[in-house]
Amino acid sequence: MTAVNARGSGSQHLPLTAVIPPELTTPEVMIDVDVLDRNIARMASATQARGLRLRPHAKTHKVLEIADRQLAAGALGLTVATIGEAEVFAKAGVRDIFIAYPLWVTAPQAARLRNLAQASSITVGVDSAESASFMGKNLGSDAGRIAVLVELDSGHHRSGVRPVEAATVARAAAAAGLDVAGVFTFPGHSYAPGMPTAAARQEDEALRQGADGLEAAGFRVKTISGGSTPTAGIEGDTAATELRPGVYVFGDAQQLELQRCVGGDIALTVASTVVSHHRTGPDEPGRFIIDAGSKVLGSDRPGWASGYGRLLDYPDATITALSEHHATVQWPQGTALPGLGDRLRVIPNHVCLTMNLVDEVSVVSNGALTGRWTVAARGKNS
Amino acid sequence: MTAVNARGSGSQHLPLTAVIPPELTTPEVMIDVDVLDRNIARMASATQARGLRLRPHAKTHKVLEIADRQLAAGALGLTVATIGEAEVFAKAGVRDIFIAYPLWVTAPQAARLRNLAQASSITVGVDSAESASFMGKNLGSDAGRIAVLVELDSGHHRSGVRPVEAATVARAAAAAGLDVAGVFTFPGHSYAPGMPTAAARQEDEALRQGADGLEAAGFRVKTISGGSTPTAGIEGDTAATELRPGVYVFGDAQQLELQRCVGGDIALTVASTVVSHHRTGPDEPGRFIIDAGSKVLGSDRPGWASGYGRLLDYPDATITALSEHHATVQWPQGTALPGLGDRLRVIPNHVCLTMNLVDEVSVVSNGALTGRWTVAARGKNS
Repeated sequence: MTAVNARGSGSQHLPLTAVIPPELTTPEVMIDVDVLDRNIARMASATQARGLRLRPHAKTHKVLEIADRQLAAGALGLTVATIGEAEVFAKAGVRDIFIAYPLWVTAPQAARLRNLAQASSITVGVDSAESASFMGKNLGSDAGRIAVLVELDSGHHRSGVRPVEAATVARAAAAAGLDVAGVFTFPGHSYAPGMPTAAARQEDEALRQGADGLEAAGFRVKTISGGSTPTAGIEGDTAATELRPGVYVFGDAQQLELQRCVGGDIALTVASTVVSHHRTGPDEPGRFIIDAGSKVLGSDRPGWASGYGRLLDYPDATITALSEHHATVQWPQGTALPGLGDRLRVIPNHVCLTMNLVDEVSVVSNGALTGRWTVAARGKNS
Repeated sequence: MTAVNARGSGSQHLPLTAVIPPELTTPEVMIDVDVLDRNIARMASATQARGLRLRPHAKTHKVLEIADRQLAAGALGLTVATIGEAEVFAKAGVRDIFIAYPLWVTAPQAARLRNLAQASSITVGVDSAESASFMGKNLGSDAGRIAVLVELDSGHHRSGVRPVEAATVARAAAAAGLDVAGVFTFPGHSYAPGMPTAAARQEDEALRQGADGLEAAGFRVKTISGGSTPTAGIEGDTAATELRPGVYVFGDAQQLELQRCVGGDIALTVASTVVSHHRTGPDEPGRFIIDAGSKVLGSDRPGWASGYGRLLDYPDATITALSEHHATVQWPQGTALPGLGDRLRVIPNHVCLTMNLVDEVSVVSNGALTGRWTVAARGKNS
């Protein structure tokens, strides 16, 4: 297995005076559409070259215009996390949607799934016999219109069953009238330094074992679905038939620090303004405050991260503290601080949270504002 | 100084079958309006008893109905963090608003401040001579309609100047035509175990020194504004004339763990459903997954916190991991796990982030759904 995403450095940035359109009021989420399109095309062709289908996770972006671009580049459908997200994309015409979550489907949720299945192919996750039976009961005679993939735990130890238990869940789902289509897993433990390759191997083993278990129990396995941007870039043989990366469209500071992308792949930044200089004395290292805080960046910060995000154009700076509307930037010693009112581009640690914080984003190309996109599925948590 | 908020235990909960209205789809933010009203009344009377004015920070809730309740209980006006938040509350009729942030006021932002000042009394923060001059220049002949408070650093080391520098900033503001009204500080370092009392003392010293500096420079100091829910409950003499607590309306897991409130003071919880059991073997401590993740709870987690939030009705459980739509709950050993489909109330670590994630909340009283409130200022980051 070889990493193909970490392509060394080579980021080419515009002159700093040009990167943030002057008409924007900060903080503002900016999507560089040229970088976005490059990321979408690269993942599409890499997946196709491996003979795999691509079903991007739309929880990352929640934007109809980006889903359109992914589907136009060859994605067979979308992945989402909630029924509410599925409703947004189905209404916009997406006809193949996988809700990659072990839903507990109550009667009102069954009615919504039934409605979704009128026009689109709908697949949901399941990871227990009880939840399969409960879903089947609430779907009633429509159960057969909903496909299910059994969720496997491939080492992340969140939801999902051990691969050896997959057939038990599948039998309960079939007994409840659901259409058992295969297995899926999310190798979330790939989000740590040195882990992507090992996690990809565990992901592959779990998928293989789970699929074998289903076939041994007499199921026809149509879909074997793997996930995650860190592991999608690990080449090599795989049991998977489809991949569900999400973050690859934008990149973020986590992917940068995991060396799964480089600065030139970053399609989303938060335009911010230097609002305060903080100097407590001559020996104090230089630091300042920008107006992008946790309410626009999100506050995910894994223990291994260098800080609460990065500055795209100043890789040696670190963000050492985050409040709701302030980020504290530690500047390299011996370097002149930016002036009050200067504007900087922040790379969030986890871009899925950033997109879920704003109703609209600014679209830029070569430093010029070209439009605004609505974050149509923002906040659709249920 | 005596802590008055930590009133020992004594939470009286409804029977668990009744606490989450059955018609709610999870995850859903619920406001217990009876607890909310009690919290609002208690802070109003405690502040009044000390002869202080109350200017609650509305960034916590962003809800017009809650602002109305705070003003009806005697608050003299509101605090907000951004011009956008001020616009929402001013449009709803709030006539006295302090934007407690060191704004860098560009020409478009000056136009918005000017517009706000047509109908409401508008005060903004300032913490440098440069930003005061820049704001004054962009406001032009309207500068005198905007009041400013000089921000002081009382130990949090975020924005704000040292108290000895306050007069320098005030002179620049006056020279720029702005109406210098006094000083303010936010003792954010009170958010740590054992810190509220010490931080309250530093806050008081900074306010006193800053105000003295302004008076010595010939300014008439009308407002000396302190902040924070942890320090607002510390009684005793203070230089402050007004307080700006925010979180007290709801409480949250941080305030619980700082012993600034008890379970019975928690007015906001996230209704969630157990969707997955995770058992990797007989010796594995019991844990399970609920459907409230970082996209509804927020992911703030200070190093001293027990986890990513708490369960209101199960104080011995901990939330050990958080994904976007999953929380991993570690259950006390030897106790039966809740069943799949059971519903639990989660207390977020930092409630200001939770409110900024949802467009609407459910209002409950005695376990019954009584209405829905719009989070009118959600996402108004600029």
